[in-house]
Amino acid sequence: MRRVDSIAAMRELARGWRAQSKRIGFVPTMGALHAGHRSLVGQAKRDGDVTVVSIFVNPLQFGPNEDFTRYPRDLEADARQLEEAGADVLFTSTPGEMYPPSFQTHVEPGPLAEPLCGASRPGHFRGVTTVVAKLFHVVAPHQAYFGQKDFQQARVLQQMVDDLAFDLKLRILPTVRESDGLALSSRNRYLSAEERKAAPTLHAALQAVREEFDRGERSPARLAAAGRERLARSAAFRLDYLEVRDDATLAIPERLAAGGVAAAAAFLGRTRLIDNVLLGDATRRLG
Amino acid sequence: MRRVDSIAAMRELARGWRAQSKRIGFVPTMGALHAGHRSLVGQAKRDGDVTVVSIFVNPLQFGPNEDFTRYPRDLEADARQLEEAGADVLFTSTPGEMYPPSFQTHVEPGPLAEPLCGASRPGHFRGVTTVVAKLFHVVAPHQAYFGQKDFQQARVLQQMVDDLAFDLKLRILPTVRESDGLALSSRNRYLSAEERKAAPTLHAALQAVREEFDRGERSPARLAAAGRERLARSAAFRLDYLEVRDDATLAIPERLAAGGVAAAAAFLGRTRLIDNVLLGDATRRLG
Repeated sequence: MRRVDSIAAMRELARGWRAQSKRIGFVPTMGALHAGHRSLVGQAKRDGDVTVVSIFVNPLQFGPNEDFTRYPRDLEADARQLEEAGADVLFTSTPGEMYPPSFQTHVEPGPLAEPLCGASRPGHFRGVTTVVAKLFHVVAPHQAYFGQKDFQQARVLQQMVDDLAFDLKLRILPTVRESDGLALSSRNRYLSAEERKAAPTLHAALQAVREEFDRGERSPARLAAAGRERLARSAAFRLDYLEVRDDATLAIPERLAAGGVAAAAAFLGRTRLIDNVLLGDATRRLG
Repeated sequence: MRRVDSIAAMRELARGWRAQSKRIGFVPTMGALHAGHRSLVGQAKRDGDVTVVSIFVNPLQFGPNEDFTRYPRDLEADARQLEEAGADVLFTSTPGEMYPPSFQTHVEPGPLAEPLCGASRPGHFRGVTTVVAKLFHVVAPHQAYFGQKDFQQARVLQQMVDDLAFDLKLRILPTVRESDGLALSSRNRYLSAEERKAAPTLHAALQAVREEFDRGERSPARLAAAGRERLARSAAFRLDYLEVRDDATLAIPERLAAGGVAAAAAFLGRTRLIDNVLLGDATRRLG
């Protein structure tokens, strides 16, 4: 695996591959890698000729009171995982290179970025679209890979790709989970032993929504209430949101049609976890 | 010259050229072409292997009370000019294709877009950066060409290219003028015979600023005052702004150093004209 630590060097590599008609797969990450990331790398390898993984903890997508400074960073452990997973290039950059003092242009997402995590984390998705647009220009991928765990992020990025006509395809892969249902996340490292024990309740609450849906309930309000009720059984969680929405528009319809998404964010201590499950035929619409 | 009227077809062409390592030059326009546009096409032809000109009157960059609906459109006359100028492809699209109902992602410029035309035309530069980013993704140019007449636009777009790491080079070519100094502009077509006679005063006022600069004056305020005084000699003009700024940051320093820009916008009747001249060694900094 080659390590590339500047935009200029990464761009040169990508230009060379493009000139040789190599298919470039790209997995943008913030590091602290886990099996979810590795599944993205595996898919990129199966789809393309070269696989680039970026590690960049993007300050733009963190709020002033969020965990940017304490976000887990362990580049050497990450590099070993990627080497084993068969990535061809590990691309890293720095905030100083990505955002020099004159930096001032942003990619601004629209209404899809407003509810859910967008409401709890103002500016978060603007940070995501801006950094991903820039990384796309540097890495020039044919395909880019994201996890379903960040469902709203995936929707916002697909909308960006469509709206601004990026010449690439996004693939969204299923969330990888621990055996007790907890979605893999870099932030799981923050959890105390006690919190870790309580953590699977978040997924259990979303599964409760899915069961209600499968029993025929189509009211987003009643479906969400069922999920919140299930989550409330764990005193450890402080709810941010648990909502049921249309999986394409992220609007809340009067009644769901054939599918939808149940999405939640909740705190265990200072750690904010998110998760979602797709309802009905929404599963088939994933990239 | 080939005519291409969909994003999908344009993208296919660009992909084919890229696969053959052809150098793509791109001139984005809103049509109503004149010798200024033709000079951009000529330069693109000299620099590259294929030259694409787009004609798209971009609704996003017009304010609600501006001239979007009456903006001059004459596709057949434009096509003849481009054929003669030697363009390889004329790419056209429609607002419906560029901005379908679900469209919601914008490229948001920063402080460079705030003064001058940005102050008079809120949202204008956001419309420009958004459409140009999208066109760049569709046409995949190695170089793109813009006129110096829209000096702030050129600065905002160069900043976008730098900030978001677009893999292309912008070239900004000198303003083409009538023999009496009037900068060529599609909007000159709006002018009555009387207005056309008064129009060169805008350039004369900016030249007066340059003369003061060349005589040693370095105060932006005093330089701008000299220009406004000259413009006021024509009763026909209603001033929007005439300002002297740093040509890189568009800030107003206490004193100019070795260069700067004098930029103005003013109305003749309902027609808003803009122009600018570079001061001192700013000329050498043009793309």
